[in-house]
Amino acid sequence: MKHQSGRHFLQIPGPSPVPERIMRVIDMPVIDHRGPEFAQLGKDVLAGMKRVFRTQGDVVIYPASGTGAWEAALVNTLSPGDTVLMYETGQFATLWKNLALRLGLKPEFIAGDWRHGADAAAVEARLAADTGHAIKAVCVVHNETSTGVTSRVGEVRKAIDRAKHPALFMVDTISGLASVDYRHDEWGVDVTVAGSQKGLMLPPGLSFNAVSAKALAANKNAKLPRSYWAWEEMLAPNKNGFFPYTPATNLLYGLRESLKMLLDEEGLDNVFARHQRHAEAARRAVNAWGLEILCQNAAEYSPVLTAVLMPAGHSEVAFRKVVLERFNMSLGSGLGKIADKVFRIGHLGDFNDLTLLATLAGVEMGLDLAKVPHKKGGVDAAMQYLAHGDAAGAKKRAAA
Amino acid sequence: MKHQSGRHFLQIPGPSPVPERIMRVIDMPVIDHRGPEFAQLGKDVLAGMKRVFRTQGDVVIYPASGTGAWEAALVNTLSPGDTVLMYETGQFATLWKNLALRLGLKPEFIAGDWRHGADAAAVEARLAADTGHAIKAVCVVHNETSTGVTSRVGEVRKAIDRAKHPALFMVDTISGLASVDYRHDEWGVDVTVAGSQKGLMLPPGLSFNAVSAKALAANKNAKLPRSYWAWEEMLAPNKNGFFPYTPATNLLYGLRESLKMLLDEEGLDNVFARHQRHAEAARRAVNAWGLEILCQNAAEYSPVLTAVLMPAGHSEVAFRKVVLERFNMSLGSGLGKIADKVFRIGHLGDFNDLTLLATLAGVEMGLDLAKVPHKKGGVDAAMQYLAHGDAAGAKKRAAA
Amino acid sequence: MKHQSGRHFLQIPGPSPVPERIMRVIDMPVIDHRGPEFAQLGKDVLAGMKRVFRTQGDVVIYPASGTGAWEAALVNTLSPGDTVLMYETGQFATLWKNLALRLGLKPEFIAGDWRHGADAAAVEARLAADTGHAIKAVCVVHNETSTGVTSRVGEVRKAIDRAKHPALFMVDTISGLASVDYRHDEWGVDVTVAGSQKGLMLPPGLSFNAVSAKALAANKNAKLPRSYWAWEEMLAPNKNGFFPYTPATNLLYGLRESLKMLLDEEGLDNVFARHQRHAEAARRAVNAWGLEILCQNAAEYSPVLTAVLMPAGHSEVAFRKVVLERFNMSLGSGLGKIADKVFRIGHLGDFNDLTLLATLAGVEMGLDLAKVPHKKGGVDAAMQYLAHGDAAGAKKRAAA
Amino acid sequence: MKHQSGRHFLQIPGPSPVPERIMRVIDMPVIDHRGPEFAQLGKDVLAGMKRVFRTQGDVVIYPASGTGAWEAALVNTLSPGDTVLMYETGQFATLWKNLALRLGLKPEFIAGDWRHGADAAAVEARLAADTGHAIKAVCVVHNETSTGVTSRVGEVRKAIDRAKHPALFMVDTISGLASVDYRHDEWGVDVTVAGSQKGLMLPPGLSFNAVSAKALAANKNAKLPRSYWAWEEMLAPNKNGFFPYTPATNLLYGLRESLKMLLDEEGLDNVFARHQRHAEAARRAVNAWGLEILCQNAAEYSPVLTAVLMPAGHSEVAFRKVVLERFNMSLGSGLGKIADKVFRIGHLGDFNDLTLLATLAGVEMGLDLAKVPHKKGGVDAAMQYLAHGDAAGAKKRAAA
Repeated sequence: MKHQSGRHFLQIPGPSPVPERIMRVIDMPVIDHRGPEFAQLGKDVLAGMKRVFRTQGDVVIYPASGTGAWEAALVNTLSPGDTVLMYETGQFATLWKNLALRLGLKPEFIAGDWRHGADAAAVEARLAADTGHAIKAVCVVHNETSTGVTSRVGEVRKAIDRAKHPALFMVDTISGLASVDYRHDEWGVDVTVAGSQKGLMLPPGLSFNAVSAKALAANKNAKLPRSYWAWEEMLAPNKNGFFPYTPATNLLYGLRESLKMLLDEEGLDNVFARHQRHAEAARRAVNAWGLEILCQNAAEYSPVLTAVLMPAGHSEVAFRKVVLERFNMSLGSGLGKIADKVFRIGHLGDFNDLTLLATLAGVEMGLDLAKVPHKKGGVDAAMQYLAHGDAAGAKKRAAA
Repeated sequence: MKHQSGRHFLQIPGPSPVPERIMRVIDMPVIDHRGPEFAQLGKDVLAGMKRVFRTQGDVVIYPASGTGAWEAALVNTLSPGDTVLMYETGQFATLWKNLALRLGLKPEFIAGDWRHGADAAAVEARLAADTGHAIKAVCVVHNETSTGVTSRVGEVRKAIDRAKHPALFMVDTISGLASVDYRHDEWGVDVTVAGSQKGLMLPPGLSFNAVSAKALAANKNAKLPRSYWAWEEMLAPNKNGFFPYTPATNLLYGLRESLKMLLDEEGLDNVFARHQRHAEAARRAVNAWGLEILCQNAAEYSPVLTAVLMPAGHSEVAFRKVVLERFNMSLGSGLGKIADKVFRIGHLGDFNDLTLLATLAGVEMGLDLAKVPHKKGGVDAAMQYLAHGDAAGAKKRAAA
Repeated sequence: MKHQSGRHFLQIPGPSPVPERIMRVIDMPVIDHRGPEFAQLGKDVLAGMKRVFRTQGDVVIYPASGTGAWEAALVNTLSPGDTVLMYETGQFATLWKNLALRLGLKPEFIAGDWRHGADAAAVEARLAADTGHAIKAVCVVHNETSTGVTSRVGEVRKAIDRAKHPALFMVDTISGLASVDYRHDEWGVDVTVAGSQKGLMLPPGLSFNAVSAKALAANKNAKLPRSYWAWEEMLAPNKNGFFPYTPATNLLYGLRESLKMLLDEEGLDNVFARHQRHAEAARRAVNAWGLEILCQNAAEYSPVLTAVLMPAGHSEVAFRKVVLERFNMSLGSGLGKIADKVFRIGHLGDFNDLTLLATLAGVEMGLDLAKVPHKKGGVDAAMQYLAHGDAAGAKKRAAA
Repeated sequence: MKHQSGRHFLQIPGPSPVPERIMRVIDMPVIDHRGPEFAQLGKDVLAGMKRVFRTQGDVVIYPASGTGAWEAALVNTLSPGDTVLMYETGQFATLWKNLALRLGLKPEFIAGDWRHGADAAAVEARLAADTGHAIKAVCVVHNETSTGVTSRVGEVRKAIDRAKHPALFMVDTISGLASVDYRHDEWGVDVTVAGSQKGLMLPPGLSFNAVSAKALAANKNAKLPRSYWAWEEMLAPNKNGFFPYTPATNLLYGLRESLKMLLDEEGLDNVFARHQRHAEAARRAVNAWGLEILCQNAAEYSPVLTAVLMPAGHSEVAFRKVVLERFNMSLGSGLGKIADKVFRIGHLGDFNDLTLLATLAGVEMGLDLAKVPHKKGGVDAAMQYLAHGDAAGAKKRAAA
């Protein structure tokens, strides 16, 4: 690569930039994963992760990517041939469905348009029709990284309850956890799937399952073969802070630091509000450019990323290439069936106002250089909002 | 933990100490795993790993511990109920067997005494008897980390050939790779399993499968469910340096640096010779102490670690506790059925003469303080060998 | 300090942000400063620094701040009571003059308005009048960090030559070196003073003297007491890569990496052009805001920083406080007699377009929040220039 | 350099190995040295250093090597032509004397044999003879790094007091501070000189003056020119945590961490006891080898380093070359008039039992390979002491 001065802007919707202080604690000597110092580390991160998931139940930490934690959720609770109801919110929902297929499950995929979250009513209707309770699990992606749409998990829970259906409820919040409000226990989720490289502000390499009592009960009868992912192998040594096989020690150092920052220093609620604010600013920029946000329901806008539709006839691949080469910034590509049609702006993790404005400036100049039709003023709109919030709007509404 | 001045000596048989320069490259910003800079990284590490495995075939890199790569070897090549012939060389062979069981395979376990490597004749006899070719794979641990015994993989290959048996040959060299001579192609191994945290001098979090053409053919018909581990998902994007799901980017930076050090700077053959020399020095110390080395066959001594039997009535747990608390050194514990009976000295990875002598000094003083019966002179014997090699012995033999 | 998410923007005119790869090489174990590995390091950095200064002469490296290298320049060449002609370009010129006073020299200070560089004609006139050659040295600040004015050193050299005056010529380019074109030999400078924490992209702690043959000759008769700064003590061991007392080893690691980046990767001329381009963009923003640039001569605009006058009655201290607290960005304060009247935007070192735009956005929002009268559109003007250069202007001029 | 696996052993008597956690805090982004975050840093390190010096007075921190702090002590308190009484304890005392000469002072050098500390009686006699109080300062090196002899500073203080002489008392404890008990106030020292790269466990680049009220008073009348070193410039901004010129910010991060480790975690008295213990073990090894320790007075043995005389006709340069090339360890050379006659073993800073034994093993093997006459058993003797302390000796004495 040609040398490029200055800092790269990694504005994909994860992996997100890792704070220096987290990298520095990762950059410490490996310790004995069977010794007393490790035991304390293990206990610390397991306890902290429960607070992040907002659960009193168990959390399992894997030395693996988020995809592994998807697999773990399924193999720990289901048996070959089981039907699972999944919802097509976008590419990651599709990949999870494909994974279920490969594992020998029967996913039923409620079709979606990739512009809305999971429709609780549709879930309710399908479950209500399943009088024989063939459906063993309902799987939903909370924050769909390919579309920038955040499904309302609590609503889906209510739908399941209204249908009085016993299916397990599994949620992927890989790109949502620690960026978007999430409540494992309150929302009655049985298995929550998460990863390290998004809101937790770590490099990729750790993933998580938060597990309800009901999921643990299902685990006892689940027949899918499993070993690496087996909760039952994890939970016993975890009680003492240990793991059944070699953990990713240095990432756990980083996790401990991240948990300290999120829980003890900034506070999760402040973290969530910060993400909401940056997402709103980003959307104001997109609106000012006259471009279309992929997500069509304002109640489901993702606080983590904003996916933007390219005007017809324009390639996001070509646009992002310009941005990368001219401005040293990585944006998210269009994935799956929206490939080359959508680009994604990540505004998550260790992030702040000026980094967002740099990001939006890179987009605005890139649109210009790639000759993508748009109006100017996106950065201005975002600055206005970041400096004054909704003051102008508030005044107008007050005057009206 | 009470503050302890000075450097911790991590002398377990892995994770091994990571060189500072490797930690520093790991400690660089995460990059876009779908961008051009990553593509080069992916290609570099995949190409380098082939050289380490000494294979022309494919190598698969997982963001996972070595245990995951065990699972990957099996689920990619076998079908539910398949018989696999495994050899009880120690605790890790036992764990791999248990893992096979959990996956729904039928492992046949040739009993061993944990003091010898896999007996090629026994393998040959068993395969010869399997005229119906019910056995689908032979699985052997190359360097048994729990015992310090290194099986002669080439001999096992010859045994399979002599038996004219079509079983796949799978080898775990998690703790051997890049420390002990290993030849995937020459020895006709179909799947080799390895991990990052031993001879590759990285933190834990990466593991590997080296895959033969025969294994790839078996993959097509293998019925065990798989997704995260599926080779077929990996190999296509790997051609361009990419991965089907988020890789452990920062560990890959470290791997590239490690490969540079092993392949281009020191040279693998020098690395192997260095491990042999340190292992010989360690054994001379053990002999001088009058303690017994667990491995009973000199042709199978591990260059990576030396497992030492405690005198009857003495606890290795108590001994290691003294060493940790008094001398800030971690030694390997006895595992499985030799728990509390054996301790293990790791002498692998980024290691040198003085670190070995520090290690042996810690053991010698620890034996003393823990009141374990032994003779003095272990460190002296190792110094003599490290300074002069086998000069004294050579002279004696010449005089005789 | 309250936790602030995201990266701090250090946009003072030095210390400048240090690239991660430089910090990582600094973060390596200290080595023996009398051993062979150090000797190579010493030779490498001394040779590289000659290329940066564009000199065939000697370079001296001090483990000290730039202020120390100011002192070194004087004590190595002058005697108590010597008259030195200095030029009041701003606060740093004033501090250097004060330092000369404290050392027992007699600085004559040509008054300046802090809005222009050193006036070559004024220097020439003063030297021409000094027929007795009482003036032993002419001291000029190249890039005045307090004002954003870059004196034309080559012009001053010509003035000295025209006056046929034998005075030594000393130049402080602490904040200019490796950001602005500088030619020690070509411009006939006798002592150039520089520091590590600006264009060289290192933390503070190293400083430099580049020394002409004439300066070395003066050194032999210079009577000011000196030891730590004594060139004569440095130059002998430097020939072998060593230093007369303990050097700042780890910063020298960083310097070697910096030299590689500046000289071998990006190339000094590209580095200079990059700084020019960012400075032009910054000035366009300031102009768009309707604010006044402190520097009044376009030929002397600094490529390193832009100092901006606050509108009358507005405090830069209050303004920068808003920017720091709201946007996590440090800007440069007004120094000396322009305290609270001027703020400074650093755009030097490891820098790029998006970081500049983030910086300008922080300024623009800060002006707004601090209720400093200004027009909008600064960021827009900078974006226009960064994306298109002077295309618009060029077209207009072509049409005219 | 040929690649060498494993960790380098830096066993010179400073710079000493820097703990990883200190390097990692140094490896954090530079901050604005005029901002509020820096102010807290400045206050923290200034307060902590007072505790290390055991003074209620002022401490000055320079971005410079220890040599600079030597110069600072003199130029801040003395006038041209002042007589200073210095004591020839070894090479560093000689260098300080030479520095005084270069500064225009008149050092009177009490001759020493480089095998003993400063003789309090000799100092007393000389001061008593100086009835006219021509002597303005008495300068003593506390821990003479070239010889491994530690002068008893408290005794020298008493000698000055007995002579009722008003001279200032200046002490260099560059290599002693934070390794050997030191009491600026209790011992009535007027200026103490120290550096970062020894007991403070930092890279080189910071140095210190601790300053008594009497020294501050002397400062007002001291006529030596000074600016960079001027206390009066430092003390005012220091009150708010700031510095008059750019400080070595990142080393100050490291200093804060070091102070936390020394003062709050291990405790200075434990640090001192640890150094005493390691020095005793090292001396037992030297004695076992039958070699001679340079220091001839057991009451003055340095806890920081042990200097060892080479047997006549043997070169320490050749010996250390063998040790470096074969065992990747740096030992200290003979300096000044004992060049090639003495080697020095550093056992200071972040150090522990096993590192000492590795060091001694490297020496023992090096002696062997370099064919230096010696007896075996040095490492054994050290192990015996480290494991059991003086138990054997205590028993013998009890029996007698």
